[in-house]
Amino acid sequence: MRIVIGQINPVVGDIKGNLQMIFDVLADWRHRQPDIFVFPELCITGYPPRDLLERTWLVRSAGEAAQHLMRETESMNAGIVIGIPVPTGRSNGKGLFNSAVLIHGGKRLFQQNKRLLPVYDVFDEERYFDSGAGHGIAEFRSEKIGLSVCEDAWNDPALWHKPMYDHNPIDDLAKQGATLMINISASPYYVGKEKLRRQLIRNHAVKYAVPFVFVNQVGGNDELIFDGRSMLVESSGTISVEATAFQTATLLIDTRVSRLADPIGPTIYPGDDAAENMFQALTLGLKDYVRKCRFEKVLIGLSGGIDSALTAVLAVHALGPKNVTGVTMPGPFSSGGSVTDSLKLAETLNIDCHVINITDIYNTFLTSLEPYFRNTEFGTAEENIQARARGNLLMALSNKTGAMVLTTGNKSEVAVGYCTLYGDMSGGLSVLSDVPKTWVYKLARHINRSDEVIPCAILNKPPSAELRRNQTDQDTLPPYDILDAILGLYIDDGLSSNDIIERGYKADTVRWVTTTVDRNEYKRRQAAPGLKVTSKAFGAGRRMPVAARQNIF
Amino acid sequence: MRIVIGQINPVVGDIKGNLQMIFDVLADWRHRQPDIFVFPELCITGYPPRDLLERTWLVRSAGEAAQHLMRETESMNAGIVIGIPVPTGRSNGKGLFNSAVLIHGGKRLFQQNKRLLPVYDVFDEERYFDSGAGHGIAEFRSEKIGLSVCEDAWNDPALWHKPMYDHNPIDDLAKQGATLMINISASPYYVGKEKLRRQLIRNHAVKYAVPFVFVNQVGGNDELIFDGRSMLVESSGTISVEATAFQTATLLIDTRVSRLADPIGPTIYPGDDAAENMFQALTLGLKDYVRKCRFEKVLIGLSGGIDSALTAVLAVHALGPKNVTGVTMPGPFSSGGSVTDSLKLAETLNIDCHVINITDIYNTFLTSLEPYFRNTEFGTAEENIQARARGNLLMALSNKTGAMVLTTGNKSEVAVGYCTLYGDMSGGLSVLSDVPKTWVYKLARHINRSDEVIPCAILNKPPSAELRRNQTDQDTLPPYDILDAILGLYIDDGLSSNDIIERGYKADTVRWVTTTVDRNEYKRRQAAPGLKVTSKAFGAGRRMPVAARQNIF
Repeated sequence: MRIVIGQINPVVGDIKGNLQMIFDVLADWRHRQPDIFVFPELCITGYPPRDLLERTWLVRSAGEAAQHLMRETESMNAGIVIGIPVPTGRSNGKGLFNSAVLIHGGKRLFQQNKRLLPVYDVFDEERYFDSGAGHGIAEFRSEKIGLSVCEDAWNDPALWHKPMYDHNPIDDLAKQGATLMINISASPYYVGKEKLRRQLIRNHAVKYAVPFVFVNQVGGNDELIFDGRSMLVESSGTISVEATAFQTATLLIDTRVSRLADPIGPTIYPGDDAAENMFQALTLGLKDYVRKCRFEKVLIGLSGGIDSALTAVLAVHALGPKNVTGVTMPGPFSSGGSVTDSLKLAETLNIDCHVINITDIYNTFLTSLEPYFRNTEFGTAEENIQARARGNLLMALSNKTGAMVLTTGNKSEVAVGYCTLYGDMSGGLSVLSDVPKTWVYKLARHINRSDEVIPCAILNKPPSAELRRNQTDQDTLPPYDILDAILGLYIDDGLSSNDIIERGYKADTVRWVTTTVDRNEYKRRQAAPGLKVTSKAFGAGRRMPVAARQNIF
Repeated sequence: MRIVIGQINPVVGDIKGNLQMIFDVLADWRHRQPDIFVFPELCITGYPPRDLLERTWLVRSAGEAAQHLMRETESMNAGIVIGIPVPTGRSNGKGLFNSAVLIHGGKRLFQQNKRLLPVYDVFDEERYFDSGAGHGIAEFRSEKIGLSVCEDAWNDPALWHKPMYDHNPIDDLAKQGATLMINISASPYYVGKEKLRRQLIRNHAVKYAVPFVFVNQVGGNDELIFDGRSMLVESSGTISVEATAFQTATLLIDTRVSRLADPIGPTIYPGDDAAENMFQALTLGLKDYVRKCRFEKVLIGLSGGIDSALTAVLAVHALGPKNVTGVTMPGPFSSGGSVTDSLKLAETLNIDCHVINITDIYNTFLTSLEPYFRNTEFGTAEENIQARARGNLLMALSNKTGAMVLTTGNKSEVAVGYCTLYGDMSGGLSVLSDVPKTWVYKLARHINRSDEVIPCAILNKPPSAELRRNQTDQDTLPPYDILDAILGLYIDDGLSSNDIIERGYKADTVRWVTTTVDRNEYKRRQAAPGLKVTSKAFGAGRRMPVAARQNIF
């Protein structure tokens, strides 16, 4: 069967725009006479539509988009598989299915409703959808197609120690004699996810001796970055085609000959190098967030440190140097390098950089607060005034110029609250909030692998907030390699303090880290959306109470 | 059956503290020889524990708390019903039940697992729990108890146009011959909820001709305010006992004689007056958020307007005047009343009030930004600098004194983004973010019903942000009665713009309001938690994408 995979990048809620993307793929490829076009899960609404699904008129409009496609297929030889929310028509329940619909000859030939609805991490599908009753075969031309939607392919007993669901829809489809499996997905990226996904699809193809076509969404939607990497896996388990990662792609495959039908297919890029993948993911997530929020330009506070330097490199890569402006804001405790290194970086990146000294502003605040601060020691209050003065300046420039401020804090800082609410946390997108500090260095070294893009002075200086005299991060925090190891065990792997201590970390350090993480939930509750690149990011995938304590036996 | 209702106020995650609350009730009441003590849903962990449920050690610790209670019942005549997460022991699924457990004589006599798991609005229970397989009768002494957990009682066909679930556990229990129904709940308040809840419990009692005991949690946990109002409804439908709202309560009832067994029972308070209910709810929510975050004192920026005045009254009511400090921060565009009215309010409320003029700070910002603002018109940038300077001052005082800043924006402002991120939105709790402006006035008039607590000058002045010359809210916004009506239809009732226009509102106004609401999701994403008092609040119960648009057919 000749299949066009439409690895598109929908905008959430933009029904008309997303339909147009589909029409564009049809127009470009119909002359190649495929049997079927396949698009990702919920491609009409974009994924995740979240509570937009509660807007009945939006769901109705998605149905109208499907009608337009149906009319289009009246004059087409090929069928189309789309992902769309479909009203259940039931007298109870949530009222919607998350469906894959096969359209052909002006009609809805087949509808497969998603059965396994993920409600973990960032997923909330039980909030919106009713579970499909079961799976059936879509007979189309010479094939018995086993159609499934994303999670329906993930309950593979070979993959999990403990399966999440009772059912395995792919098994059901195989037993009904499927000769070809097609899964439409909106499967987000995190570091290493591509390997897991390949293993999953391979397991199915080999176990059921059937070719498996996986079609994934690409693009950034708020926190989530979809990496694409649609693929065709032969019944032998060989991945004969894998679409490019982090880019839209359209490719024509032929499942009978198990290969790309089009000789000018895209190459597999960026491979599996974890740093390059994360770099590409962050670039795409940044670009799409800015673009889909209808901004063009960004502002970044450059401190002379590694986090803001990495953020600037990513922004330039995503938006081009003309759309990125650095602002370096030295204050009373800034090192000389904070300005010179920032200017050097700006020069290398070919971006504008403003210099605004905050010392006068800081002093005016202190004068105004003198009656209340008299006879107190310099402390967090004085530190944060500086960070918030900088936040105010960046936001003022944002309001004046229409550029979005990007925040630069990394996951390690955000985890232990080593950042200032309404200060350096001010901005529309938190680019690195899921990138641990040790990974910030990995990415920086990756970027510098052939040229000194990030000045070595920035890479090599000890990290410091420069909010008090001679301050370094290590005055307050454990060394970053220790901190990140403990954070990984606590946040990503879900171990308790005791479990972590048993692995050989110092008890005091572990307890300081875990209680500090818990105590700083209030800061993260007010953080800008951050791009998810690990298996457990702060934000929608981690829902912690604020007014709580952990007081246990 | 003689039942002690323990309407307690647990702290989320505080297993030891919550267990102690239960022990305290047992100690106070066991000499009265009840048959059974009943505590709310998930009373051991507090509700909602959210992702703390993913911490296996916390769930294990809750189990240990249950063991302590079991040992206690060895020397007691009475049984105890508690709500607790219980590992399912299954080889697949989420791994936990949300259970009501009846303990007696040192043993677990009965365990009823919740079957209907809410996943709408603020609820995420499918994220954590597996659904119980069905309901059975707990035989205890002379009664066949039909035990259920919260949502299991809510799928009443008489209440809903369209039921959410296939099953009605109360019906199942009645068919099995239950002689007494007991429902343990964590059912949050919103305005008017008490009537819905009474109707629900009455429906069951009358339909199945059986007394119904409803035991609810009380207290504020982050956004949610639990009003308590535990009750005993006779089989005739008469509510013979209703525990006080918004306060902890312990009461001994006798289901055979259908009345309060203890003559010194609490009175029903605050009745059903909506304004008084909302006032009590906000007071409790504020008090518990501050207390459970381990703060004692709060800071409030007093603008001379009605929102900050109402917030101050609520704070004084919740925490006492010694724990509340006002800060009035006049700027270049402030009216004279902004200071004098704030000082008058502070005097009436007997709270401290600082006066800090922001004009010097504002001017220093403008001087620093002069190279970038040159030849531009006064606009949002200049307005927001003022709001953010005030936010910085409040946060500096907070950092210095350890008092939590309360934000004062109301739901109407927050809806259309008529507020400044990192400015007046700075703070730990957004007290009024679910109170529409028209309700702010209702509450203020309610507070002033006998005394002029809020100065009339504040009540009667036209609302203004005072961030530019001669500004009033109505320069930008529709009149608040119109705005709130449209917001109610759009946000609370889920109508489309077209539906709202059909109800007779001006098309231009409606479209401005709905698009402005959508465009300001990014501000709300970074807002402080706000107390939920309506059926649809911003925050955990409303999950909108940010980088999205609504472009539909």
